[in-house]
Amino acid sequence: MTSPSAPSAEKILQTGLAFWPSKTLLSAVEMGVFTELAQGPQNFDELSGRLGLHPRSARDFLDTLVALKFLARSGDAYSNTPETDLFLDRQKSSYIGGILEMANSRLYSFWGHLTEALRTGRPQNETRDGSDESPFAKLYADPARLKSFLAAMSGISRGANIAIAKKILWSRYKTYADIGTAQGDLAVQIALANPHLHGIGYDLAECAPIFEEYAAAHSLNGRLRFQPGDFLTQSLPNVDVLTMGHILHDWNLDDKKMLIRKAYDALNPGGAFVVYDAIIDDDRSQNAFGLMMSLNMLIETPGGFDYTGADCISWMKEIGFRDAYVEHLVGPDSMVVGFK
Amino acid sequence: MTSPSAPSAEKILQTGLAFWPSKTLLSAVEMGVFTELAQGPQNFDELSGRLGLHPRSARDFLDTLVALKFLARSGDAYSNTPETDLFLDRQKSSYIGGILEMANSRLYSFWGHLTEALRTGRPQNETRDGSDESPFAKLYADPARLKSFLAAMSGISRGANIAIAKKILWSRYKTYADIGTAQGDLAVQIALANPHLHGIGYDLAECAPIFEEYAAAHSLNGRLRFQPGDFLTQSLPNVDVLTMGHILHDWNLDDKKMLIRKAYDALNPGGAFVVYDAIIDDDRSQNAFGLMMSLNMLIETPGGFDYTGADCISWMKEIGFRDAYVEHLVGPDSMVVGFK
Repeated sequence: MTSPSAPSAEKILQTGLAFWPSKTLLSAVEMGVFTELAQGPQNFDELSGRLGLHPRSARDFLDTLVALKFLARSGDAYSNTPETDLFLDRQKSSYIGGILEMANSRLYSFWGHLTEALRTGRPQNETRDGSDESPFAKLYADPARLKSFLAAMSGISRGANIAIAKKILWSRYKTYADIGTAQGDLAVQIALANPHLHGIGYDLAECAPIFEEYAAAHSLNGRLRFQPGDFLTQSLPNVDVLTMGHILHDWNLDDKKMLIRKAYDALNPGGAFVVYDAIIDDDRSQNAFGLMMSLNMLIETPGGFDYTGADCISWMKEIGFRDAYVEHLVGPDSMVVGFK
Repeated sequence: MTSPSAPSAEKILQTGLAFWPSKTLLSAVEMGVFTELAQGPQNFDELSGRLGLHPRSARDFLDTLVALKFLARSGDAYSNTPETDLFLDRQKSSYIGGILEMANSRLYSFWGHLTEALRTGRPQNETRDGSDESPFAKLYADPARLKSFLAAMSGISRGANIAIAKKILWSRYKTYADIGTAQGDLAVQIALANPHLHGIGYDLAECAPIFEEYAAAHSLNGRLRFQPGDFLTQSLPNVDVLTMGHILHDWNLDDKKMLIRKAYDALNPGGAFVVYDAIIDDDRSQNAFGLMMSLNMLIETPGGFDYTGADCISWMKEIGFRDAYVEHLVGPDSMVVGFK
């Protein structure tokens, strides 16, 4: 018999086949399993009929979701778990399935070309065949899809946004702007937690109605306003604090520094620049998600990459920030704060 | 702040993106990272050069493997962990990467069509476009690839094989045959643990030299012999115990019962039939791997499916076995033992 400390192949096999549970969940989101069950429990015949599941493997599929603890089953009736009911019902504002729909329809197959990406350094998404059109251009051209996508981004960022709204010494400041604000959840969370502040959401003009609807839903129109702009070609708003979440990692080193410089130039004296991402630990040995997010930037962008807190602090200081520190937020996300 | 018992999206997001660590490991096996490092630690420049990694993301890729604990890093030198050195070095007989190479080159992309499989009930492998050729026909036609594939199968089955060699009351029996024996590891483990037994490895004739070499490597030629045969069209050897590992799940219900009946007919009076697979728990709510293996049978076969212990016992009793029981082996694998 093998001793408890003998090497085991279990983790290797489990990780190597982890695309099985992953794709099972992604297909369940795609087919609307959790939205269907948000109405209440359904028995097997009813549920598999409504989902359009072929009889051959319908029960295996639903029971896999039970064994993975994304569904519950009592007798013959399937139901959502508290987590899947809250986060994977398309009808709820807490829905985060948008990011999984995107992973299912795009990233799963693009990651199939990871080896080629690692050998060539070239992206493997829609631009792989030389097509010019960015997938984001298509997304921004469709207001309904854009709103659903931006809402999904809010859902997965909310924990970090709430942490930033509490962890910065906001009492020092009066104004802020969130750059690349999308639906505006970070701007909203900061305003909700700090009634003395006035904020700006800055993004491409297509985001304006989505931002304004979201601010109004939180009764924040009086203190939040939208400013259309393109951070690649235009200057940033002059405020006390600038925030930039899940933006910097999209760009190559020159563009990253250009964005940090624009932030420095726009900040009022004594102001602060708050950058957050799945920032990699300085030893690059712990935050596996941050490192894989950087591989995702390889798949998705011509030059983007994720970075350590030390990397970001060194860029900020090189550009002129007098001091900077890194602080963990939630999950894989940390922020770097630089002071002008 | 959220309370500890508030629903969290973490597991949903982690599972939904679990194809990231999965594909990272599969690409590492494909590129031979662990075989390269089995020679000893290498610094970053040397390793990334030898692997042909493009500079853009070479460090992200290797550091992801560090963070996932498949590599270690000391200073600038990367090295294997004890697990990856033992199981993922192609030069070692303990290599199990064959199954991951297959998952990388075939299953990852086929599982991308899981939704279609669930809607149609039809396989999504090489036969998807109507081509007749089974991937196994190609495999069996290439002796070197076949040997490497069968060795990988041995690697991932060895724990269960050793358990079977101990858990059956072999002292009652004198002869056995392993049906679909491949390289023959189950036949070998039973013979090693039970010196009074004589055994047969039964499989297609192409497996003969691979089986015989493996038996000879364990000095078992005197007690083990190969018998060529096709269990779909021919009868099984007359022995005291028949074993069948990871075979029954490949087939539809009629073929499963046909195989169980052939086993019943071939067994000597008082004999036993030992079936093993990633057998699903009777409640179909715990063995997620067994349930996903059944989805893999949907992807790979026209009618195969995995089953519970209760299912298998009922088929055995229907066919004439006087008694049967199910017993856990290791990991997701259990065996069902039926007595004639």
